[in-house]
Formats: sequence, structure tokens, C-alpha cells
Amino acid sequence: MATAHGLKINAQRLNDTLQSTCSSWGALAAPSTGMCRLTLSQEDKGVRDWLVAECKSLGCEVKVDQIGNIFAVRKGEVEGAKPIAMGSHMDTQPAGGRYDGILGVQSALEILRTLHENNIRTYLPIALVNWTNEEGARFPGAMMASGVWSTHSSTPLEACWDLQDKDGISMKHALEDIGYLGTTPADYRENGLECHFELHIEQGPLLEIGGKTVGIVTSVQGMKWFAVRVEGVEGHAGATPMPNRADALVTASRLITVVRDAALSTALGVATVGVIKSDTSSQATIPAGVDFIIDVRCTTDEMVDQLASTIFKSFDKVIADENNGTSYAITRSWGMPQSIFHPRCIEACRNAALKVVGEAQVMEMKSRAGHDTAWTSRVCPSSMIFVPSKDGLSHNPNEYTSPEHCAVGAEVLLEAVLGYDGKVRAGEYMSS
Amino acid sequence: MATAHGLKINAQRLNDTLQSTCSSWGALAAPSTGMCRLTLSQEDKGVRDWLVAECKSLGCEVKVDQIGNIFAVRKGEVEGAKPIAMGSHMDTQPAGGRYDGILGVQSALEILRTLHENNIRTYLPIALVNWTNEEGARFPGAMMASGVWSTHSSTPLEACWDLQDKDGISMKHALEDIGYLGTTPADYRENGLECHFELHIEQGPLLEIGGKTVGIVTSVQGMKWFAVRVEGVEGHAGATPMPNRADALVTASRLITVVRDAALSTALGVATVGVIKSDTSSQATIPAGVDFIIDVRCTTDEMVDQLASTIFKSFDKVIADENNGTSYAITRSWGMPQSIFHPRCIEACRNAALKVVGEAQVMEMKSRAGHDTAWTSRVCPSSMIFVPSKDGLSHNPNEYTSPEHCAVGAEVLLEAVLGYDGKVRAGEYMSS
Repeated sequence: MATAHGLKINAQRLNDTLQSTCSSWGALAAPSTGMCRLTLSQEDKGVRDWLVAECKSLGCEVKVDQIGNIFAVRKGEVEGAKPIAMGSHMDTQPAGGRYDGILGVQSALEILRTLHENNIRTYLPIALVNWTNEEGARFPGAMMASGVWSTHSSTPLEACWDLQDKDGISMKHALEDIGYLGTTPADYRENGLECHFELHIEQGPLLEIGGKTVGIVTSVQGMKWFAVRVEGVEGHAGATPMPNRADALVTASRLITVVRDAALSTALGVATVGVIKSDTSSQATIPAGVDFIIDVRCTTDEMVDQLASTIFKSFDKVIADENNGTSYAITRSWGMPQSIFHPRCIEACRNAALKVVGEAQVMEMKSRAGHDTAWTSRVCPSSMIFVPSKDGLSHNPNEYTSPEHCAVGAEVLLEAVLGYDGKVRAGEYMSS
Repeated sequence: MATAHGLKINAQRLNDTLQSTCSSWGALAAPSTGMCRLTLSQEDKGVRDWLVAECKSLGCEVKVDQIGNIFAVRKGEVEGAKPIAMGSHMDTQPAGGRYDGILGVQSALEILRTLHENNIRTYLPIALVNWTNEEGARFPGAMMASGVWSTHSSTPLEACWDLQDKDGISMKHALEDIGYLGTTPADYRENGLECHFELHIEQGPLLEIGGKTVGIVTSVQGMKWFAVRVEGVEGHAGATPMPNRADALVTASRLITVVRDAALSTALGVATVGVIKSDTSSQATIPAGVDFIIDVRCTTDEMVDQLASTIFKSFDKVIADENNGTSYAITRSWGMPQSIFHPRCIEACRNAALKVVGEAQVMEMKSRAGHDTAWTSRVCPSSMIFVPSKDGLSHNPNEYTSPEHCAVGAEVLLEAVLGYDGKVRAGEYMSS
């Protein structure tokens, strides 16, 4: 897999490093190959400390910003220029896999190693970026720290610092605790990037179904979340006759079924309820209240709004049909509009993929999952490269991408970075 | 409300004492009049310490057994005889009311006060009993400590001691912590009762609907609980197309709806899901697993089994209909067979009610809720008296029984105890 630049990443080293660091920091008990590396946990600290040491050993300057994002910058010819970034995240879901996010950061490291051992001098600096709390699994809010950095998130730095995990530990305290409350401003205007590339697993089945190896991602679908509360009347599970009940969980159950049915009736929209909480912890009590969160995603923002509207119209029908005194309310909603990636970056990735695997192996696609690049794309040219997920699984301990596919992805990322850098050197792009 | 014995409880004192002790120990924040007095909590310790002091001030001997049950015994003419007991509980649900259980213990105290100030000498000793953890809301397993005392529960003393609350505190530790790990054996064979009467609120609407004041309870319906686990496949909420999902929460939602529908199709059976837990805490993850508990109750054990069988047949239909790779399993089941109360005790309560309120105000009924008396009835003659619950509400902060109805209940309880004692004195009953 030699590139046009004659460089070649070390596929064996990439796989060995990815597997050994996963085994060291956050591996679920065997025989699972899954991961629980919650953001800012001791496991996250372990892999962060290792990453920082590795990058420093390659001569990189390492900056940590106020929300724990790590920027490891390898110098280019132009002093003080903004770097071409290769970013992703190393935190995982509570029962996640070894590839979601991790592959992007490990590939970036493998590329820094390759550039270093081949004494490559790029025109612009090249940066590895590890974004904090992409998963939102410990502190609520996915893609949190790239959102803060982009200044486009509705949750600014101080509000993120105040968020608490389920044990009541604030995010600021967690950052301090593991030594990653940095001093670099978490703001692209003060710590900018020339552009941002992200290699990621697809997390869906489309590449596998299509028999393709590389996805060139042109956009991220829009998404919205709705926190819903259903209210009924608490009562004794033994003594309250069935017709007299206003059971919040029965109503919530019907609503959750409706969410699925509404999404199933669209072409490509998805809607999911993952989190649910009943007010009662007693099996002998009819629940007075139930909270759940709906995650809605569609190709365009308009389709998101349409699907949400269909869901809530169906909710009203369920409430009318039950007619038992239960009700629902949307207590909070937030979201992320669709992201259109930058033509320069898409072109760099497409050219790279054509060189590395040839046209027959490449598919242009939209991302159905959110990514840090959705935020970076709002403030600097950005795009993504996908490689296949076995059986489309992700957020699952059985998530798997073969070492061959990982290596192809890293090779395409290297080629895209060098291609972009070459165009800047050649004066084809005005540096932003 | 003078009784045939010329005794009269002090209705004002009963209400004042009940309200003030609820306000002191475990009241929810105003304007709620509800209670959170979890078993063996500091609030429970407060009211227990007060109760023990009150009973001692009336000359009672107080024993605490190995599971924290309190027996306050007032001497009778026959030395060493087993006492006629008036028992119930003072713990509540996390969002319960002021009457469930509490009324029975406060009425027993009011009766001890009435006997004391009138210098009444009964033939047999009279006991107030406060049973530990009737609600099962902190340590799982309702009517726990009366079950242990009866030796008929499937969960013996040591297993109860090992149970943990959600903070990981064991029941034995909690008993020690508040000073109620007693030394009296928690075993009816070593600390027996002649018989057991319990005054309780109905917790349902039947007395109110029927316009009656006093329920003479002849049995407690049978009940069974089933812990159900639904399994699916974890996946990414954005990237997994709807038709490819094995969503455990969607399937669980359909099953919970089915539980309701099956119970609704019976004449008097009830089935409830109060507790539900999704494997994931991430809104962006399709849940791989969901756990919930079904509470099934019917007039007879046979009807319980029939309803459960209907529910699980419907479950199989849902699984076949969804056909998406999700499945369900019953991971644990436990239960309490129907309890038939003792003719002597039923007769004592009926005679008492006829004297206190007259036939037009009395209804014979089955209890649809479980009670400590369901356990005592297995080892000594037992029965219960019900008074109305406003709107049938219970396990609810708005639970309410008027001071007049509370006083009527206490009067009937006093009359039943004295009536039973008189029959023993007259030699009509062989002491058991």
C-alpha cells in the first residue's frame, strides 16, 4: 500500500498499538473484546498519558485545552501556521467497542510515527487531536468538547464544567482529577485548525452490504433529541382496579412503540429510545411518572422535523385513545443540524481513496451518526473517511473492523493529509 | 362511640398523634402531605424510638426481634400467655401516604393508651406489633419481616440480613445502625401470638363506591411476581437502519402493553409493571437488554396462574410478531399464595363492626393488597379490618382517610380485641 508520496504506514504496528492500548485501559472482562473507557475516567487518563508521551517522543508539541482536548502538533515548514488536523476520540460507551473513535486517533498516531521515521517535512504543521467526551455517556451531551471548541454548541464551556455524572462528580472536577484541565483556550479562534480530517468506522452496514472498503463522507445527517415525561397517577398495584388506572408506564410503552412505528414508515429516518426511567422503584406501585429520551435522525433537518412532527401527532392519538388521565410533555429538546462537509476536504479524501484502493472500492455516503467533525466543519474545512463495520454493529462490545480495513483507512487518511498539504504548498488553496 | 365494654378511644388524640409523628419523621416537603419513611432509615428510627418510649410509659414490656419487629406487650391476667396482637407497619413507600400501615400501629397505641387510662385488666396480654419492612421499598421483598417471623417465607432471616439497598447497605447493617437488631428470636414458635388483628386502609375504592365505612376482610388475594429480561442487540441509534434493529426496549414496551391488556380482560385480576431498567444509559444506543418486574394478583391462586399463563402466551405472540431477534426470559419468580383468614377473628371483627357502626355500614371483602396478616394467618388465627381510602388512592402522597374513619377503625379494632379476649376468658376458645 505505498502512496504516491512513497510513504507507507505500518499496518502491523497500527493494529498492535490499537489492541494493546485497548487491553490496557478500559477492556471489558474476557471473553468480551468490548470496552468501557468512559471520558475522564482512570482508564481514559491511562490512555491519554500514554498518547501524550508517544506524541512527545515523536517531537510533537502537546497542548491541552480547558475542556481536556489534546492537540499534538508536528512542525511544518511554515512557522506558526494552523495545522492540518487528524482528530477523533478515545472515550467509549459503557459497553462499546475498540474502533469507534479509537481507530481515528490511533491512525493519526501511526501517521505521525510514519512521518517521523521517514523524516518527512510537511508544508503546514500536522496535528493529532483527541476530542474529550465525544460519546456523552458519562456527562450528557455527545460531541461535547468539539462543540465547545467550535463555539457553535448551545452548551458553552462553563455549563459543561458544571455537568455532573451519575455519582455527582462535575466535569470540571473530573478534568482536574485526571490532570487534563488545560490552559489553552477551548476556542477555535484562539487555537485554530487549517482543516480537520477524521477517519472513523461506519457504525452501519452500508459499506459491507455494498462490498466497498472506503466511504467518502460528504455530510452528517441532522439530529434532534427530545426529553419526554409521561405523567399518570401513582397507585397500589394490588388494590387499584385495572379500569381505574392512570399508569404512566403503560402509556410510555405505547409511545415508545409509536416512535419505532413512525420511524419505520420513513425511507431512511431513524428514531430511538435508549434511556428510560420510572418514578417508582417499587414493584407494587403503579408508576406516576416515566421519563425517556427520543433520538431522531434524518438525512436533512427538514426530514428530522417531519419525523418528529409525525411522532408527536401519534403521541396525541395514543393519549386520546388511552383516555385514562395520563399525559405527556416534552421537557427539553436539543439537536445538531445537518453538516455539509467542505469540497476541498472531500476532494482530498476521494483522491486519496482512489489511489489507495481504486474506484471500485469507494462509496460516497452520508454519516448517520454524529461526529466531532460535524462541529469542526462549522469553523474549518472538514470531512471524514469511513471504513466498514462488521455486521454494521457499533456501540456494542462486538463492534469489529478488520486490521486490513483499519490499515486502508489510515493509508487514505495519510494520503488525504499529504494531498491537502501539497495543494496548500502549491498555492492552490489560500490558507484560511 | 362507646363500646359495649364502656370504653371509648380518643379520636382527637389518635389523629393528633398520627399527624404529628408523620410530620416529625419522614414527611415529604409541603404542600405534599405524603411520606417517605423507608424501613430502617433515620426517619424510621425516629418514630420507632418514640413508639418504644410511649409503650414503655404505658407499662408495656418491649421486645425487639432479630429482624427489628417491635412487640410491646401489656400484661393480662394470665401470666406468660401469648398475647392478642394488634399489628401493622410504620414504614412507607418512597412517595407514600400517612395511613398505609401507620394507621394500624397508631390505632394499636391509642388502644393501649385507652386500656391504660381506664385501668382495664384483660384476660390475655395485649400486644402492639410493628412489623419491619412491610413495603419492601428499600430492601426488596414486601411483608418481609412478618414472613420471617412466620417461618413460611421463602426468604429466611439470614438471607434477609444479606439483602442490600441501592446504596449497597445490607439490611443487617441497617438494623444495627439504628439500634434495632434485637435478640428475641424472629420465629413465632419462640415468640408467639395468640392471634393477630390488623386495622388498615383499603387502598382501593370499593368501600367508598359501596358507601360503607368498615370492611371485614376474609382473605387476601394470591399474588405472584415475575422478573422478566428482554434481550436484543445493542447498536448505534444513528447508524442502524430501523429494519435491522433488535431493540430490547421496543419489544419490552409491547410486552408491558400486553400485561395491561391481559389483566384488563379479566374480571378482577390486576397486573402491573412498576420497575423497569434499560441496559444503556446512553440516548444514542439501541438497548441490548431491558429488565422489568410483573406483579400479578387475583382472588385465587388458580386465577393468578391463569392470568400469568395468558400474559406469557401473549408475550410469545409479540416475539413471533416482532420477529427481529429479540427474546424474553423469566429470570425469577416468587409469590404469596392466597390467605384465608380465621373464622374466630373474622367473627370478632364482624361483631365489633356491627356494634360500632351497624350492619348497613359493613361490607365483607377480600384484600387485593398483601399485608403482614397474610403471613400471621399461616401460624395463628388472624384477620383484618379495612376503612375507606379516598378515591381508592394508596402508595401515593395524596392517600387520605378521614379522622372519623380512622377513629371508627380504631374503635372496631378495640372491640374485636376485647371481644376475642372475652371469649377466651369464657372458655369458648381453647387458647392455641
